[in-house]
Amino acid sequence: MKRTIGIDMDGVLADIETHWLNLYEKDYGVKLSPEIFKGVTESDAFPDKTAVHKYVFTPGFFRTLPVMEGAVEAVKKLAEDYEIYIVSAAMEFPLSLFEKREWLAEHFPFISWKNIIFCGDKSIIDTDYLIDDHCKNLDYCKGMPIMFSAGHNANQNHHVRVNSWTEVLALMEKEQELCTS
Amino acid sequence: MKRTIGIDMDGVLADIETHWLNLYEKDYGVKLSPEIFKGVTESDAFPDKTAVHKYVFTPGFFRTLPVMEGAVEAVKKLAEDYEIYIVSAAMEFPLSLFEKREWLAEHFPFISWKNIIFCGDKSIIDTDYLIDDHCKNLDYCKGMPIMFSAGHNANQNHHVRVNSWTEVLALMEKEQELCTS
Repeated sequence: MKRTIGIDMDGVLADIETHWLNLYEKDYGVKLSPEIFKGVTESDAFPDKTAVHKYVFTPGFFRTLPVMEGAVEAVKKLAEDYEIYIVSAAMEFPLSLFEKREWLAEHFPFISWKNIIFCGDKSIIDTDYLIDDHCKNLDYCKGMPIMFSAGHNANQNHHVRVNSWTEVLALMEKEQELCTS
Repeated sequence: MKRTIGIDMDGVLADIETHWLNLYEKDYGVKLSPEIFKGVTESDAFPDKTAVHKYVFTPGFFRTLPVMEGAVEAVKKLAEDYEIYIVSAAMEFPLSLFEKREWLAEHFPFISWKNIIFCGDKSIIDTDYLIDDHCKNLDYCKGMPIMFSAGHNANQNHHVRVNSWTEVLALMEKEQELCTS
Protein backbone atom coordinates (compact mmCIF):
# COMPACT_ATOMS: atom_id res chain seq x y z
CA MET A 1 0.00 0.00 0.00
CA LYS A 2 1.28 3.49 -0.86
CA ARG A 3 2.10 5.82 2.02
CA THR A 4 -0.17 8.85 2.30
CA ILE A 5 0.58 12.58 2.09
CA GLY A 6 -1.90 15.22 3.25
CA ILE A 7 -1.39 18.50 1.38
CA ASP A 8 -2.79 21.84 2.49
CA MET A 9 -4.23 24.31 -0.06
CA ASP A 10 -3.79 28.00 0.92
CA GLY A 11 -0.10 28.88 1.09
CA VAL A 12 0.94 25.45 -0.21
CA LEU A 13 -0.95 24.53 -3.41
CA ALA A 14 -2.30 28.06 -3.82
CA ASP A 15 -0.16 31.20 -3.71
CA ILE A 16 -2.32 33.19 -1.31
CA GLU A 17 0.36 35.83 -0.53
CA THR A 18 0.63 36.87 -4.19
CA HIS A 19 -3.18 36.93 -4.44
CA TRP A 20 -3.46 39.28 -1.45
CA LEU A 21 -0.70 41.56 -2.77
CA ASN A 22 -2.40 41.79 -6.19
CA LEU A 23 -5.82 42.52 -4.70
CA TYR A 24 -4.38 45.10 -2.32
CA GLU A 25 -2.62 46.90 -5.16
CA LYS A 26 -5.81 46.93 -7.24
CA ASP A 27 -8.01 48.19 -4.38
CA TYR A 28 -5.63 50.51 -2.51
CA GLY A 29 -3.27 51.59 -5.28
CA VAL A 30 -0.21 50.49 -3.26
CA LYS A 31 2.27 47.91 -4.54
CA LEU A 32 3.70 46.06 -1.53
CA SER A 33 6.49 43.50 -1.40
CA PRO A 34 6.17 39.88 -0.17
CA GLU A 35 8.56 40.94 2.63
CA ILE A 36 5.58 42.45 4.51
CA PHE A 37 4.41 38.93 5.48
CA LYS A 38 7.66 38.03 7.27
CA GLY A 39 7.09 36.94 10.84
CA VAL A 40 3.61 38.43 11.25
CA THR A 41 0.06 37.14 10.81
CA GLU A 42 -1.39 37.81 7.37
CA SER A 43 -3.88 40.36 8.74
CA ASP A 44 -1.14 42.36 10.43
CA ALA A 45 0.99 42.44 7.28
CA PHE A 46 -1.07 45.12 5.51
CA PRO A 47 -1.40 48.82 6.38
CA ASP A 48 -5.20 48.27 6.40
CA LYS A 49 -5.57 45.51 9.01
CA THR A 50 -9.15 44.74 7.88
CA ALA A 51 -8.16 43.91 4.28
CA VAL A 52 -7.38 40.18 4.71
CA HIS A 53 -10.58 39.50 6.64
CA LYS A 54 -12.58 41.33 3.95
CA TYR A 55 -10.93 39.38 1.13
CA VAL A 56 -11.39 35.89 2.57
CA PHE A 57 -15.12 36.54 2.91
CA THR A 58 -15.44 37.97 -0.62
CA PRO A 59 -17.12 35.61 -3.13
CA GLY A 60 -14.62 34.54 -5.77
CA PHE A 61 -11.51 35.01 -3.59
CA PHE A 62 -10.72 31.29 -3.26
CA ARG A 63 -11.83 30.48 -6.83
CA THR A 64 -9.29 32.87 -8.38
CA LEU A 65 -6.16 32.03 -6.35
CA PRO A 66 -3.01 31.54 -8.45
CA VAL A 67 -1.40 28.10 -8.29
CA MET A 68 1.86 27.92 -6.31
CA GLU A 69 4.86 27.67 -8.65
CA GLY A 70 5.65 24.06 -9.54
CA ALA A 71 2.77 22.61 -7.50
CA VAL A 72 0.86 20.85 -10.30
CA GLU A 73 3.90 19.04 -11.72
CA ALA A 74 5.20 18.14 -8.25
CA VAL A 75 1.89 16.71 -7.00
CA LYS A 76 1.54 14.70 -10.23
CA LYS A 77 5.02 13.29 -9.66
CA LEU A 78 4.40 12.53 -5.97
CA ALA A 79 1.19 10.69 -6.87
CA GLU A 80 3.30 8.03 -8.61
CA ASP A 81 4.75 6.88 -5.27
CA TYR A 82 2.29 8.21 -2.67
CA GLU A 83 -1.47 8.37 -2.12
CA ILE A 84 -2.22 12.10 -2.14
CA TYR A 85 -4.96 13.70 -0.03
CA ILE A 86 -5.79 17.39 -0.23
CA VAL A 87 -6.57 18.57 3.31
CA SER A 88 -7.88 22.11 3.64
CA ALA A 89 -9.32 23.90 6.68
CA ALA A 90 -12.05 25.25 4.40
CA MET A 91 -14.81 24.94 7.00
CA GLU A 92 -13.88 28.31 8.53
CA PHE A 93 -15.06 30.05 5.36
CA PRO A 94 -18.33 28.45 4.23
CA LEU A 95 -18.30 30.31 0.91
CA SER A 96 -14.95 28.79 0.09
CA LEU A 97 -16.23 25.20 0.08
CA PHE A 98 -17.66 25.14 -3.44
CA GLU A 99 -14.96 27.50 -4.77
CA LYS A 100 -12.15 25.32 -3.48
CA ARG A 101 -13.76 22.21 -4.96
CA GLU A 102 -14.01 23.96 -8.34
CA TRP A 103 -10.45 25.32 -8.08
CA LEU A 104 -9.12 21.82 -7.49
CA ALA A 105 -11.17 20.43 -10.38
CA GLU A 106 -9.64 23.07 -12.67
CA HIS A 107 -5.99 22.94 -11.57
CA PHE A 108 -5.63 19.41 -10.14
CA PRO A 109 -8.16 17.39 -12.18
CA PHE A 110 -6.11 14.22 -11.57
CA ILE A 111 -7.04 14.31 -7.85
CA SER A 112 -10.20 12.27 -7.24
CA TRP A 113 -13.04 13.67 -5.10
CA LYS A 114 -12.37 10.68 -2.85
CA ASN A 115 -9.01 12.23 -1.91
CA ILE A 116 -10.24 15.71 -0.94
CA ILE A 117 -10.94 16.66 2.68
CA PHE A 118 -12.36 19.99 3.81
CA CYS A 119 -12.18 20.22 7.57
CA GLY A 120 -11.69 22.49 10.54
CA ASP A 121 -9.22 21.14 13.04
CA LYS A 122 -6.82 18.71 11.24
CA SER A 123 -5.95 16.67 14.34
CA ILE A 124 -8.08 13.66 13.33
CA ILE A 125 -6.56 13.46 9.84
CA ASP A 126 -4.21 10.51 9.78
CA THR A 127 -1.75 10.64 6.87
CA ASP A 128 1.88 9.53 6.95
CA TYR A 129 3.01 13.06 6.05
CA LEU A 130 1.36 16.48 6.25
CA ILE A 131 2.63 19.39 4.14
CA ASP A 132 1.20 22.59 5.62
CA ASP A 133 2.24 26.18 6.36
CA HIS A 134 0.59 26.45 9.79
CA CYS A 135 1.95 25.18 13.11
CA LYS A 136 -1.62 24.94 14.43
CA ASN A 137 -1.98 22.02 12.00
CA LEU A 138 1.57 20.64 11.92
CA ASP A 139 1.98 20.55 15.71
CA TYR A 140 -0.92 18.10 16.11
CA CYS A 141 -0.74 15.94 13.01
CA LYS A 142 -0.35 12.19 13.36
CA GLY A 143 2.29 11.69 10.66
CA MET A 144 5.52 13.51 9.84
CA PRO A 145 4.99 17.28 9.67
CA ILE A 146 6.59 19.19 6.77
CA MET A 147 6.43 22.98 6.96
CA PHE A 148 5.98 24.80 3.67
CA SER A 149 7.59 28.21 3.97
CA ALA A 150 5.34 31.25 4.20
CA GLY A 151 5.99 34.72 5.56
CA HIS A 152 3.95 34.10 8.69
CA ASN A 153 5.99 30.98 9.66
CA ALA A 154 9.43 32.54 8.99
CA ASN A 155 10.39 32.47 12.69
CA GLN A 156 9.06 28.99 13.52
CA ASN A 157 11.74 26.36 13.25
CA HIS A 158 10.61 23.21 15.02
CA HIS A 159 9.53 21.33 11.87
CA VAL A 160 11.32 20.13 8.74
CA ARG A 161 11.06 23.10 6.36
CA VAL A 162 10.65 23.19 2.57
CA ASN A 163 10.91 26.43 0.61
CA SER A 164 9.42 25.32 -2.70
CA TRP A 165 7.79 22.43 -4.49
CA THR A 166 11.24 21.52 -5.86
CA GLU A 167 12.36 21.00 -2.26
CA VAL A 168 9.23 18.97 -1.48
CA LEU A 169 10.07 16.62 -4.34
CA ALA A 170 13.68 16.25 -3.21
CA LEU A 171 12.60 15.49 0.36
CA MET A 172 9.92 12.99 -0.61
CA GLU A 173 12.23 11.21 -3.04
CA LYS A 174 14.68 10.77 -0.17
CA GLU A 175 11.85 9.45 2.04
CA GLN A 176 10.84 7.01 -0.69
CA GLU A 177 14.45 5.76 -0.99
CA LEU A 178 14.68 5.26 2.78
CA CYS A 179 11.43 3.32 2.74
CA THR A 180 12.32 1.02 -0.14
CA SER A 181 15.99 0.45 0.75
CA MET B 1 -8.62 14.03 26.74
CA LYS B 2 -12.10 13.08 25.55
CA ARG B 3 -12.39 10.16 23.19
CA THR B 4 -13.60 11.07 19.71
CA ILE B 5 -16.69 10.00 17.75
CA GLY B 6 -17.04 10.57 14.02
CA ILE B 7 -20.69 10.84 12.99
CA ASP B 8 -21.96 10.53 9.43
CA MET B 9 -24.73 12.83 8.11
CA ASP B 10 -26.98 11.19 5.48
CA GLY B 11 -28.87 8.26 6.95
CA VAL B 12 -27.51 8.98 10.46
CA LEU B 13 -28.05 12.63 11.44
CA ALA B 14 -30.34 13.26 8.47
CA ASP B 15 -33.32 11.08 7.59
CA ILE B 16 -32.59 10.68 3.90
CA GLU B 17 -34.98 7.74 3.35
CA THR B 18 -37.99 9.79 4.50
CA HIS B 19 -36.81 12.72 2.34
CA TRP B 20 -36.66 10.50 -0.77
CA LEU B 21 -40.08 8.97 -0.06
CA ASN B 22 -41.64 12.43 0.37
CA LEU B 23 -40.08 13.80 -2.81
CA TYR B 24 -41.04 10.70 -4.78
CA GLU B 25 -44.67 10.97 -3.65
CA LYS B 26 -44.75 14.67 -4.58
CA ASP B 27 -43.20 14.16 -8.02
CA TYR B 28 -44.61 10.77 -9.04
CA GLY B 29 -47.89 10.70 -7.07
CA VAL B 30 -47.00 7.32 -5.52
CA LYS B 31 -46.78 6.84 -1.76
CA LEU B 32 -44.19 4.14 -1.08
CA SER B 33 -43.27 2.48 2.22
CA PRO B 34 -39.79 2.55 3.87
CA GLU B 35 -39.79 -1.23 3.27
CA ILE B 36 -38.70 -0.58 -0.34
CA PHE B 37 -35.17 0.24 0.87
CA LYS B 38 -34.63 -3.12 2.55
CA GLY B 39 -31.51 -4.90 1.30
CA VAL B 40 -31.12 -2.90 -1.91
CA THR B 41 -29.18 0.19 -2.93
CA GLU B 42 -31.16 3.40 -2.62
CA SER B 43 -31.29 3.85 -6.41
CA ASP B 44 -32.72 0.38 -6.93
CA ALA B 45 -35.41 0.90 -4.29
CA PHE B 46 -37.65 3.11 -6.46
CA PRO B 47 -39.68 2.10 -9.52
CA ASP B 48 -37.90 4.94 -11.39
CA LYS B 49 -34.25 3.97 -10.97
CA THR B 50 -33.07 7.45 -12.03
CA ALA B 51 -34.93 9.28 -9.23
CA VAL B 52 -32.28 9.09 -6.49
CA HIS B 53 -29.49 10.27 -8.81
CA LYS B 54 -31.69 13.15 -9.97
CA TYR B 55 -32.53 14.20 -6.40
CA VAL B 56 -28.98 14.21 -5.01
CA PHE B 57 -27.93 16.55 -7.80
CA THR B 58 -30.90 18.89 -7.31
CA PRO B 59 -30.09 22.21 -5.57
CA GLY B 60 -31.76 22.32 -2.17
CA PHE B 61 -31.94 18.55 -1.66
CA PHE B 62 -29.34 18.42 1.13
CA ARG B 63 -30.43 21.72 2.68
CA THR B 64 -34.01 20.48 3.28
CA LEU B 65 -33.33 17.02 4.74
CA PRO B 66 -35.35 16.22 7.88
CA VAL B 67 -33.33 15.56 11.03
CA MET B 68 -33.22 11.91 12.17
CA GLU B 69 -35.49 11.33 15.16
CA GLY B 70 -33.68 12.00 18.44
CA ALA B 71 -30.40 13.00 16.78
CA VAL B 72 -30.09 16.56 18.12
CA GLU B 73 -30.70 15.62 21.76
CA ALA B 74 -28.48 12.54 21.53
CA VAL B 75 -25.51 14.36 19.96
CA LYS B 76 -25.82 17.12 22.57
CA LYS B 77 -25.73 14.47 25.31
CA LEU B 78 -22.78 12.61 23.73
CA ALA B 79 -20.82 15.87 23.50
CA GLU B 80 -20.67 15.96 27.31
CA ASP B 81 -18.40 12.91 27.38
CA TYR B 82 -16.95 12.71 23.86
CA GLU B 83 -15.38 15.05 21.30
CA ILE B 84 -17.82 14.94 18.38
CA TYR B 85 -16.76 15.23 14.73
CA ILE B 86 -19.25 15.31 11.88
CA VAL B 87 -17.75 13.31 9.00
CA SER B 88 -19.65 13.41 5.73
CA ALA B 89 -18.64 12.12 2.30
CA ALA B 90 -19.97 15.37 0.85
CA MET B 91 -17.23 15.69 -1.76
CA GLU B 92 -19.12 13.39 -4.16
CA PHE B 93 -21.80 16.05 -4.57
CA PRO B 94 -20.12 19.47 -4.90
CA LEU B 95 -23.45 21.31 -4.60
CA SER B 96 -24.04 19.70 -1.23
CA LEU B 97 -20.99 21.28 0.41
CA PHE B 98 -22.49 24.67 1.25
CA GLU B 99 -25.95 23.17 1.86
CA LYS B 100 -24.61 20.66 4.37
CA ARG B 101 -22.65 23.37 6.18
CA GLU B 102 -25.82 25.49 6.41
CA TRP B 103 -27.95 22.50 7.49
CA LEU B 104 -25.53 21.75 10.34
CA ALA B 105 -25.49 25.42 11.40
CA GLU B 106 -29.30 25.34 11.58
CA HIS B 107 -29.87 21.99 13.30
CA PHE B 108 -26.61 21.43 15.19
CA PRO B 109 -25.42 24.97 16.00
CA PHE B 110 -23.51 23.65 19.02
CA ILE B 111 -21.05 21.83 16.70
CA SER B 112 -18.07 24.08 15.93
CA TRP B 113 -16.81 24.46 12.33
CA LYS B 114 -13.57 23.02 13.69
CA ASN B 115 -15.34 19.69 14.19
CA ILE B 116 -16.84 19.31 10.71
CA ILE B 117 -15.16 17.24 8.00
CA PHE B 118 -16.40 16.93 4.44
CA CYS B 119 -14.43 14.25 2.65
CA GLY B 120 -14.50 11.52 0.07
CA ASP B 121 -12.95 8.31 1.25
CA LYS B 122 -13.10 8.19 5.09
CA SER B 123 -10.11 5.86 5.53
CA ILE B 124 -7.77 8.61 6.76
CA ILE B 125 -10.21 9.87 9.40
CA ASP B 126 -8.95 8.74 12.77
CA THR B 127 -11.65 8.87 15.47
CA ASP B 128 -12.09 6.37 18.30
CA TYR B 129 -15.59 5.52 17.02
CA LEU B 130 -17.36 5.97 13.69
CA ILE B 131 -21.17 5.93 13.48
CA ASP B 132 -22.11 5.41 9.84
CA ASP B 133 -24.63 3.52 7.71
CA HIS B 134 -22.23 2.40 4.98
CA CYS B 135 -19.85 -0.56 5.10
CA LYS B 136 -17.63 1.18 2.55
CA ASN B 137 -16.79 3.59 5.40
CA LEU B 138 -17.11 1.31 8.44
CA ASP B 139 -14.97 -1.49 6.99
CA TYR B 140 -11.92 0.78 6.72
CA CYS B 141 -12.23 3.09 9.71
CA LYS B 142 -9.46 3.26 12.28
CA GLY B 143 -11.65 3.22 15.39
CA MET B 144 -14.62 1.08 16.47
CA PRO B 145 -17.22 0.92 13.70
CA ILE B 146 -20.90 1.34 14.71
CA MET B 147 -23.48 0.64 12.02
CA PHE B 148 -26.57 2.85 12.06
CA SER B 149 -29.44 0.86 10.59
CA ALA B 150 -30.70 1.80 7.14
CA GLY B 151 -32.65 -0.19 4.59
CA HIS B 152 -29.62 -0.67 2.36
CA ASN B 153 -27.53 -2.25 5.17
CA ALA B 154 -30.27 -4.59 6.46
CA ASN B 155 -28.39 -7.72 5.38
CA GLN B 156 -24.92 -6.67 6.54
CA ASN B 157 -24.14 -7.98 9.97
CA HIS B 158 -20.39 -7.78 10.58
CA HIS B 159 -20.51 -4.55 12.67
CA VAL B 160 -22.14 -3.58 15.97
CA ARG B 161 -25.59 -2.33 14.93
CA VAL B 162 -27.73 0.47 16.38
CA ASN B 163 -31.32 1.00 15.26
CA SER B 164 -31.92 4.49 16.65
CA TRP B 165 -30.30 7.39 18.47
CA THR B 166 -31.68 5.95 21.72
CA GLU B 167 -29.61 2.84 21.05
CA VAL B 168 -26.54 4.95 20.21
CA LEU B 169 -26.82 6.67 23.60
CA ALA B 170 -27.21 3.36 25.44
CA LEU B 171 -24.16 1.90 23.67
CA MET B 172 -21.96 4.94 24.21
CA GLU B 173 -22.93 5.19 27.88
CA LYS B 174 -21.80 1.59 28.27
CA GLU B 175 -18.53 2.41 26.47
CA GLN B 176 -18.01 5.39 28.76
CA GLU B 177 -18.56 3.21 31.84
CA LEU B 178 -16.06 0.63 30.55
CA CYS B 179 -13.52 3.36 29.97
CA THR B 180 -13.87 5.05 33.35
CA SER B 181 -14.30 1.89 35.47
